[in-house]
Amino acid sequence: MRTAYHEQLSALCAQLAEMCGLTAAAMERATTALLDADLTLAEQVIADHEHIAMLNRRAEETAIRLLALQQPVAGELRTIVGSIRISADIERMGALAVHVASISRLRHPECALPDEVRASFAEMGSRAVRLARIAQEVLIAPDPDKAARLHDEDDAVDDEHRHLFTLLLDHKWQDGVCSAVDVALLGRYYERFADHAVEIGRRVIFEATGGLPVGKQMA
Amino acid sequence: MRTAYHEQLSALCAQLAEMCGLTAAAMERATTALLDADLTLAEQVIADHEHIAMLNRRAEETAIRLLALQQPVAGELRTIVGSIRISADIERMGALAVHVASISRLRHPECALPDEVRASFAEMGSRAVRLARIAQEVLIAPDPDKAARLHDEDDAVDDEHRHLFTLLLDHKWQDGVCSAVDVALLGRYYERFADHAVEIGRRVIFEATGGLPVGKQMA
Repeated sequence: MRTAYHEQLSALCAQLAEMCGLTAAAMERATTALLDADLTLAEQVIADHEHIAMLNRRAEETAIRLLALQQPVAGELRTIVGSIRISADIERMGALAVHVASISRLRHPECALPDEVRASFAEMGSRAVRLARIAQEVLIAPDPDKAARLHDEDDAVDDEHRHLFTLLLDHKWQDGVCSAVDVALLGRYYERFADHAVEIGRRVIFEATGGLPVGKQMA
Repeated sequence: MRTAYHEQLSALCAQLAEMCGLTAAAMERATTALLDADLTLAEQVIADHEHIAMLNRRAEETAIRLLALQQPVAGELRTIVGSIRISADIERMGALAVHVASISRLRHPECALPDEVRASFAEMGSRAVRLARIAQEVLIAPDPDKAARLHDEDDAVDDEHRHLFTLLLDHKWQDGVCSAVDVALLGRYYERFADHAVEIGRRVIFEATGGLPVGKQMA
């Protein structure tokens, strides 16, 4: 019985890791769709999200079942409770990838990005994907050394996000209001995606080392 | 023992309701700060958020303690698990009120809002506050009749949000890029605040009537 329980707990963590990998893939494709004005890819990201949302509901059901049937205590209890919050974070990451894809779709056949911010979004996109992949790895094996990498990547996303706002607000923006609004919202989506990935990594690592993380909640 | 447990469960729900009331007050003050370019009020909203963040951490600890000590089943288990997600939603609502206040602070002594969108933000602000108050009431007493009110208020926020984007994107926007970016982000903050309140109400009501809600997760 106890063995079956540990298998279920491992399966829950593996499921969260898989979901995290799906959001990494979603954000990777959403970024390509954004950079290349690729409508098919954008629509694929949007359509695929229902799968992540379904896995989120299933993860919560699994967590409830584990709590009901096994009545875990101490560290295992914290892991299961943590998984409920992590699952919500992952679902949001997927939704944010959908938002990026939706802006690509809305502007198609135009590209939503003016040339001067393409490099910034390529950079934020690859860092966001990397963050989701690190969160995925941490969910499989909570390696505290990876916390530092999460922070470095997140800092880089924040720097790029600030840089975008400097471009938007320095009175030299030449690409019009519509484009500025798209860029501001897109920047926000990448920043939030990164924050959720950091939150997941931080939670897993703090749980592994004891105690509750004080999150970067304000962004 | 069982009585003490039910008291603790009631106390957890009361704590969530109190937190929800605090975010309603925070958004009310943030909206006033935005409309009146009131720096003192904006700074108060920002400073007060730490209290909501602390209550969020405390609510999760209470939930874990209840799970560990009482090993609840069925409906009570769902209530406690739900409270963990609700607490995270409330914390985000508080963070979104802080974002609104931060834009007011950033633009002070100017007002961040051009005249033509003042009425929209006054409207979205009062509806967002009302949504948080309905969520608060539902947390105290899960009245299914209030679900309809949540949807009506949320629909009104969404309509106003769409109207804002029509104004921003119809090529007649006269107030410059900086202002457009502020308005786009502010609109998003109100819309997300409303979504979280709806999510809380929906979750509480569905838990009261059985089953897990399929949320409005995509926004």
